[in-house]
Amino acid sequence: MINVGIIGAGRIGQVHAKSIITGVDEANILAIADPYLSPAAEKWAKSVGIPNIYRDYKLIINDERIDAVLICSSTDTHAQISIEAIQAGKHVFCEKPIDQKLDRIAEVEAALKASPRKLKYQVGFNRRFDHNFRALRKAVQDGRIGEVQFVRVSSRDPEPPPAGYVKGSGGIFLDMMIHDFDMVGYLSGHKVEEVYAKGAVLIDPAIGEAGDVDTATVSLRLDNGALALIDNSRKSVYGYDQRAEVFGSKGSVQNANDLPSTAVISTVEGVTAEKPLWFFLQRYMSSYQAEVRSFIESIVNDTDVEVGIAEGRDSIRLALACKKSMEENRPVKLDEIH
Amino acid sequence: MINVGIIGAGRIGQVHAKSIITGVDEANILAIADPYLSPAAEKWAKSVGIPNIYRDYKLIINDERIDAVLICSSTDTHAQISIEAIQAGKHVFCEKPIDQKLDRIAEVEAALKASPRKLKYQVGFNRRFDHNFRALRKAVQDGRIGEVQFVRVSSRDPEPPPAGYVKGSGGIFLDMMIHDFDMVGYLSGHKVEEVYAKGAVLIDPAIGEAGDVDTATVSLRLDNGALALIDNSRKSVYGYDQRAEVFGSKGSVQNANDLPSTAVISTVEGVTAEKPLWFFLQRYMSSYQAEVRSFIESIVNDTDVEVGIAEGRDSIRLALACKKSMEENRPVKLDEIH
Amino acid sequence: MINVGIIGAGRIGQVHAKSIITGVDEANILAIADPYLSPAAEKWAKSVGIPNIYRDYKLIINDERIDAVLICSSTDTHAQISIEAIQAGKHVFCEKPIDQKLDRIAEVEAALKASPRKLKYQVGFNRRFDHNFRALRKAVQDGRIGEVQFVRVSSRDPEPPPAGYVKGSGGIFLDMMIHDFDMVGYLSGHKVEEVYAKGAVLIDPAIGEAGDVDTATVSLRLDNGALALIDNSRKSVYGYDQRAEVFGSKGSVQNANDLPSTAVISTVEGVTAEKPLWFFLQRYMSSYQAEVRSFIESIVNDTDVEVGIAEGRDSIRLALACKKSMEENRPVKLDEIH
Amino acid sequence: MINVGIIGAGRIGQVHAKSIITGVDEANILAIADPYLSPAAEKWAKSVGIPNIYRDYKLIINDERIDAVLICSSTDTHAQISIEAIQAGKHVFCEKPIDQKLDRIAEVEAALKASPRKLKYQVGFNRRFDHNFRALRKAVQDGRIGEVQFVRVSSRDPEPPPAGYVKGSGGIFLDMMIHDFDMVGYLSGHKVEEVYAKGAVLIDPAIGEAGDVDTATVSLRLDNGALALIDNSRKSVYGYDQRAEVFGSKGSVQNANDLPSTAVISTVEGVTAEKPLWFFLQRYMSSYQAEVRSFIESIVNDTDVEVGIAEGRDSIRLALACKKSMEENRPVKLDEIH
Repeated sequence: MINVGIIGAGRIGQVHAKSIITGVDEANILAIADPYLSPAAEKWAKSVGIPNIYRDYKLIINDERIDAVLICSSTDTHAQISIEAIQAGKHVFCEKPIDQKLDRIAEVEAALKASPRKLKYQVGFNRRFDHNFRALRKAVQDGRIGEVQFVRVSSRDPEPPPAGYVKGSGGIFLDMMIHDFDMVGYLSGHKVEEVYAKGAVLIDPAIGEAGDVDTATVSLRLDNGALALIDNSRKSVYGYDQRAEVFGSKGSVQNANDLPSTAVISTVEGVTAEKPLWFFLQRYMSSYQAEVRSFIESIVNDTDVEVGIAEGRDSIRLALACKKSMEENRPVKLDEIH
Repeated sequence: MINVGIIGAGRIGQVHAKSIITGVDEANILAIADPYLSPAAEKWAKSVGIPNIYRDYKLIINDERIDAVLICSSTDTHAQISIEAIQAGKHVFCEKPIDQKLDRIAEVEAALKASPRKLKYQVGFNRRFDHNFRALRKAVQDGRIGEVQFVRVSSRDPEPPPAGYVKGSGGIFLDMMIHDFDMVGYLSGHKVEEVYAKGAVLIDPAIGEAGDVDTATVSLRLDNGALALIDNSRKSVYGYDQRAEVFGSKGSVQNANDLPSTAVISTVEGVTAEKPLWFFLQRYMSSYQAEVRSFIESIVNDTDVEVGIAEGRDSIRLALACKKSMEENRPVKLDEIH
Repeated sequence: MINVGIIGAGRIGQVHAKSIITGVDEANILAIADPYLSPAAEKWAKSVGIPNIYRDYKLIINDERIDAVLICSSTDTHAQISIEAIQAGKHVFCEKPIDQKLDRIAEVEAALKASPRKLKYQVGFNRRFDHNFRALRKAVQDGRIGEVQFVRVSSRDPEPPPAGYVKGSGGIFLDMMIHDFDMVGYLSGHKVEEVYAKGAVLIDPAIGEAGDVDTATVSLRLDNGALALIDNSRKSVYGYDQRAEVFGSKGSVQNANDLPSTAVISTVEGVTAEKPLWFFLQRYMSSYQAEVRSFIESIVNDTDVEVGIAEGRDSIRLALACKKSMEENRPVKLDEIH
Repeated sequence: MINVGIIGAGRIGQVHAKSIITGVDEANILAIADPYLSPAAEKWAKSVGIPNIYRDYKLIINDERIDAVLICSSTDTHAQISIEAIQAGKHVFCEKPIDQKLDRIAEVEAALKASPRKLKYQVGFNRRFDHNFRALRKAVQDGRIGEVQFVRVSSRDPEPPPAGYVKGSGGIFLDMMIHDFDMVGYLSGHKVEEVYAKGAVLIDPAIGEAGDVDTATVSLRLDNGALALIDNSRKSVYGYDQRAEVFGSKGSVQNANDLPSTAVISTVEGVTAEKPLWFFLQRYMSSYQAEVRSFIESIVNDTDVEVGIAEGRDSIRLALACKKSMEENRPVKLDEIH
């Protein structure tokens, strides 16, 4: 039985707690900590039976009974808490991104290497555990489509975040497209070498005023010569649109959105199916459980984590390269990003 | 080059003429005849270059240059003209049904057997030449689904005929479901042994007053023990609905409707595809050309027709059995129908 | 908080226990009882934290702390335990069927009426809580398709039960099609008045030797004049096939199977999607949780259960009518079944 | 009745001739000319009843009875013959592209402006007349998806051309993606302002040795700020893949491939639909007839052609811009291309 401490009792912290309670038999939540613990969050933590509820996360770091820490706090604290947890000898599951700066990620990596114990460190790219994306990856790995020649990832949110959020988010590439960068690597099995990014403010002028874009496309070249395209929109009125395709020498594999039901109504108006599930909490809920289960199993069985620090850094580098590409309106090689 | 005479210049006669002109290279229309020839039909016949336009169909029967006759006149004349054409040594393509009475069909068959020339006689079950139903038949014949265990045919018209038409039509089983009876035999490769039919008047009370039903289901047992189900409706507000499924020991094959385009619109209202093509002239147009081409080729190559007098009789017997079954509310064996 | 006792620790008992533990916050499992309790089941019960584990179900019936009983024991005990639980003042969730005999169901109903407390009694027709069938029901109830004129239910198992099981099962109509009978009533909102059933042994001769059929179709007439068709097969090699369609004056609504993923692979072989989820435990898992949650909520909120004793009886009567119809090869009115 | 002369008796000349004969009632083919007239082509021309068959196309240009000329000769002759036909007072339908050089297109335009008669000049972008792309255009024009924010066009050939052909083709952007450039303008209703193109040789090294690429992506910015992406492959083993999507403020519309039939087979291997129609002659046949019909109708009714010289030039400029972009690995503004 792995004893777990969760740092951060916000939405995603609660999602992970519920995942463990309802579906990860080898793990037990011993404590949760949040400096801004709301009364509602405290009440929730009690109701699900978490025995220790703190404001100070160091109580988790310093608790020798705790084997693994889930870092679900605000992004700017991820690297610092990661390092402390590693130094305390804990396995770490860290929500994405580890940090928006590469040198901070390097510090986490250094801490991990310096640890006398062989610790697991997993980054929260949950889409790798989603049934629809996993099916694509499997088809590629099984050789069903031959050599990868082209990858396409489309990702559209149902509604834009408030402009206030956008300001501190690091921008669309770090905040939203980061998942799609991870998907390009995951699905193709290849690294990206060069990107060219375009952005536009077409949905909410306030997003533009906050220094970001709400619509973006990226053209990518992979290390095997294959090409890739990503498109993002902050507002898809019909709901969360999450699709990808991988095309190769022996065929192509693509997925479609998950729907609330398979019902289709035929009337004088047309033949109408349901809209996609509304947003990530509906669409990806089962992937959150799967990623935490995978993390716990990697500890129990001493196997490699499925998404490590290297993958976490790759996506950040891609996001930074795209930011630079959009600002300078030119293709940017990944080599330029240090 | 096969010289063709067409008897009946109504809608289906014109469809067949156009098919030959635009896509059957080995055939040449020498004449068309219609006792009720309208000025519009005459004008049309001239515009497409048919050299001889008659009111009296006997001018076609007696024209020695003519090799083959297409009988597109009213149903009650099919058997009589068939016999005359056969006796004049013509190959015959006869619109369905040959006749609604089995003894009249027997007379046509007798004439065919008595002919000193080996004549082709094809019945106009066009759906056997439709791409979607042919694909089902092919899958079954190729053994893709193993032994046939169950067949389902759904057939729904976009709008009911006028009650006046219904009166002389012979009823829903002879007028509409006749195509579906033919499909059960065609798709399964088996004969029907027993039927149980139910009907209801749910769409237009005038159809009930005319002695018919507008909604019907039939349960069938085939000679290999397999079961089948047919459903019919005279009014599907979303358009002509034409689907079938064949299920067997190794799998299942089904088809769907043809659409005007593959466009799908996603909005706040849902994800909407196009409605099926409106009615048979839109949906089955290419099958009309294919059946006439097949008929001409069977003459040119001296091969068997794809739908002969036996198949024409089978469907009529099924329709008569269903009529009896519905009236007496009991299962009826095909043996009972003579 | 509703205290629950579960009688029967087999597969479905465990499914319901897990549902409550992971997703029904207002319920608490106080005890489980099973006369044939296996060591594995006992170990499982302990691991999920059920505090009392018995062999004698009367310990549950007589426990005053327990508010509600889930009857998950073998079918022949359902009625007896139902009556005892009712008489002890417990709410009851009873797996389907209540009993295969109508007079036994009447006895349960009588006990329920005689109870001084207003008790909830829900029957385990889980498909009513499935997202795909619920979406059909909602479309019908919302008037999206107008007056119901036709219903079709297709239901195919991935593999037949052993012939040994078949013998005691009551036959395909009571054992398998019972769910589809329930669906016809649920989806249409109408009662069935007459049925005509056909069966065939096409899959496993041993099923025939056991006195049952493995393939069946039923033609039904509803109380509003609408028609319906059901088809069943015990062996669909591509997996569990569960589909329905409701057709009416304003349109049609149909559903399709749930798949493991939306991935589609295009190769020289064709364009291939995934097979349906394998069997009921995969396909209907979320419906099991939804039905138990609904039962608990009906107690908490004192609302009507969604599937009561009347619906439980309707399906049994339909099954008995179909059995009679198949044996006598004639349509059977529901009035004939007492 | 419009008298037509066809210049070029190769594949596309024959396609247009057949279109007119079988489906464009207001046009009559008076002559066909081809300097390299093969015996097979000559035989074909006779068999379909074209009365005048020449080697010298000037016999068509100088024939006063001829109203309209269809230029179906090799690309390098399009501009020259266009100018001669215009100067002879003929309406012109010219296969795409008018020319690969903008100054040659300008000369054709000048000739058209200089003509004392108001002549029609249509360019052969047949996909604008395809049902699936027209449905997308209509949805956009009808405002169904609001303001256009993103466009995607995927286009994949089933097999690459021989490397020998590639050499003289002008490269993938001028030879293949030219249709997709036209689609971006047609579907969005907007002009492209900037492009960034990437290419790769992943299919056939001989294509690379011939100086071309076989896989390409383009990122585009439109004049309303919207973004677009195009992907091309010369070899899609599952057949011709032709899809597009337009996304906007009120929703999204996309299309899918046309299939030989709607049949879907479910077996232990999966649920398999048909592959797309093999190549452009299968996929776009009806669009060829529709474009010629539209051309003839624009003459008869004196309406604007649907695809004029401006659209022909736009696509060439886009192709030239992409070529430059790929060669210089930088975004290229359309303003740079003269």
